[in-house]
Amino acid sequence: MAAYRLALMGVGVIAKAQHLPAIAANPAFELVALASRAPVAYQGLPQYANLDDLLNNGPEFEALALCTPPQGRADLVRKALAAGKHVLMEKPPTPSVSEFLTLEPAAQAAGRVLFATWHSRFNRGVAKAQQLLANETLARLTITWKEDVNRWHPGQEWVWHPGGFGVFDPTINAFSILTEIFPNRLTVAAADLDFPANRDTPIAARLTLADARSPKADATVAVDWLQRGEQTWTIDVVTDSGLALTLTHGGTKLWLGGQLVIDESDTEYPEIYARFKTLLDENRSEVDGAPLHLVADAFLMGKRHTVAAFNWDAA
Amino acid sequence: MAAYRLALMGVGVIAKAQHLPAIAANPAFELVALASRAPVAYQGLPQYANLDDLLNNGPEFEALALCTPPQGRADLVRKALAAGKHVLMEKPPTPSVSEFLTLEPAAQAAGRVLFATWHSRFNRGVAKAQQLLANETLARLTITWKEDVNRWHPGQEWVWHPGGFGVFDPTINAFSILTEIFPNRLTVAAADLDFPANRDTPIAARLTLADARSPKADATVAVDWLQRGEQTWTIDVVTDSGLALTLTHGGTKLWLGGQLVIDESDTEYPEIYARFKTLLDENRSEVDGAPLHLVADAFLMGKRHTVAAFNWDAA
Repeated sequence: MAAYRLALMGVGVIAKAQHLPAIAANPAFELVALASRAPVAYQGLPQYANLDDLLNNGPEFEALALCTPPQGRADLVRKALAAGKHVLMEKPPTPSVSEFLTLEPAAQAAGRVLFATWHSRFNRGVAKAQQLLANETLARLTITWKEDVNRWHPGQEWVWHPGGFGVFDPTINAFSILTEIFPNRLTVAAADLDFPANRDTPIAARLTLADARSPKADATVAVDWLQRGEQTWTIDVVTDSGLALTLTHGGTKLWLGGQLVIDESDTEYPEIYARFKTLLDENRSEVDGAPLHLVADAFLMGKRHTVAAFNWDAA
Repeated sequence: MAAYRLALMGVGVIAKAQHLPAIAANPAFELVALASRAPVAYQGLPQYANLDDLLNNGPEFEALALCTPPQGRADLVRKALAAGKHVLMEKPPTPSVSEFLTLEPAAQAAGRVLFATWHSRFNRGVAKAQQLLANETLARLTITWKEDVNRWHPGQEWVWHPGGFGVFDPTINAFSILTEIFPNRLTVAAADLDFPANRDTPIAARLTLADARSPKADATVAVDWLQRGEQTWTIDVVTDSGLALTLTHGGTKLWLGGQLVIDESDTEYPEIYARFKTLLDENRSEVDGAPLHLVADAFLMGKRHTVAAFNWDAA
């Protein structure tokens, strides 16, 4: 079968580190063009300044990988779909719930495939956890997501602007795993949000979750964006039957009863493109807003606290 | 055809003022039981203290009308569905987006009908506006929703608690009309939220909306919960073709080019029960979270401002 011809828009950090290598390694795709504001040299591919330029002047292609920032991405998705392209989106898909909800109908109307990706879900440990937990009653769930914004988003002021999510920018990765291993179950029951005195988005949060199927579960989330030293991205689960399951390092390592049973890095993006091929073959979209809904609920239900002003580390 | 036997739970202000008269006037329903914390005398009907009591000790019935407050309502819906009952819910359906999303799958799993009502949608002026605007490009949209919390929620502290929505408790009615007349189009682009210094939910807000189909539209929302004197619930629309359409009084009056063309009160709840009968006849659920999503997005994208402390008017 001939490969799907693909264009990629938004050649930033995540595209260079993950998308381009994953595409190059997957024979189902042939990358034929790039769109990028800044000039980028990659395999001699033709480059276009923006989506209109790509659509009007670029080569023929079937699918677009969108790696631009979430602000404005919904407009690009709708335009690409309307031009007859299938679309793959980086996470978080859009800055708002209602904007996200315009996308699947747009894909249906265009008769094209839309794939809203959540990279953390594409670890083998996450799939295994989902399988092990499918029929379990939850006793305790502890999500700890603590990293240093200075290290992962140096100087990126947009994370502090209204709609920039703040600490929920990384936390949405935890939610993408959570909603994969417990589909349609966990909801936000209460939230405390710490806003730096000089910023519009939270730097830390503590949440209590509720599980529709395990009313007695003790489920909490602690997130912090000013974590020095070791960085922690852990989901810890204990069930009524005594199963003790831990996902660490953002879902790449799975521990059962304290034993490391899956330790696999760098499968996320290859798996994303393998899934995209399947969706294209089957002409089927995958557009799940569940992680975004949990973020929105944390803001909706959150008690706001003002904490010390945040200033970037000196460079 | 035999009437659907109905039980009603939560016999508060809205049930007494709207649900009970609407049910009594609709021959498709036979009210057979009430569930209420406080004793209520109504047509000699048997009364039960809570949902378990009703299900275990009450008469046979097919459908439950849930008029309890939104907090805890999702649990009641799931329990009623699991017991084989069809369910109608008052608005707002749940305090969170993710909780709302557990409900439709629960109805599907139970093979029962779930109807999440938005009363403001059931005005003839709203249906007419939807029809007139279906193919219009939006030029200007102005939503003004200004009422006095002292008058409509005297002493109800829960509106100020985290998750209590604050001024978005009435605003969600405007959003329910907006998402009916412009389905799947309008999203929150920016929001400013005024929090009283002593409260956890906003007392006023100013939003800018975006319309996927009218990128140049000027669409704004101004809401205030401390409006003395005349109360205002108005949606004002001007389209590129020159159509000028205004819904006032919460959607009960429709004006075209300054002329009052529909003026109809008290149809909302009779129409809700007429729709419920249709859904039951067709074994079809109606569970639309769009108004709730706009509220969540306002919190998610909102810039927070602290304003004067709020204190209730002296009684």
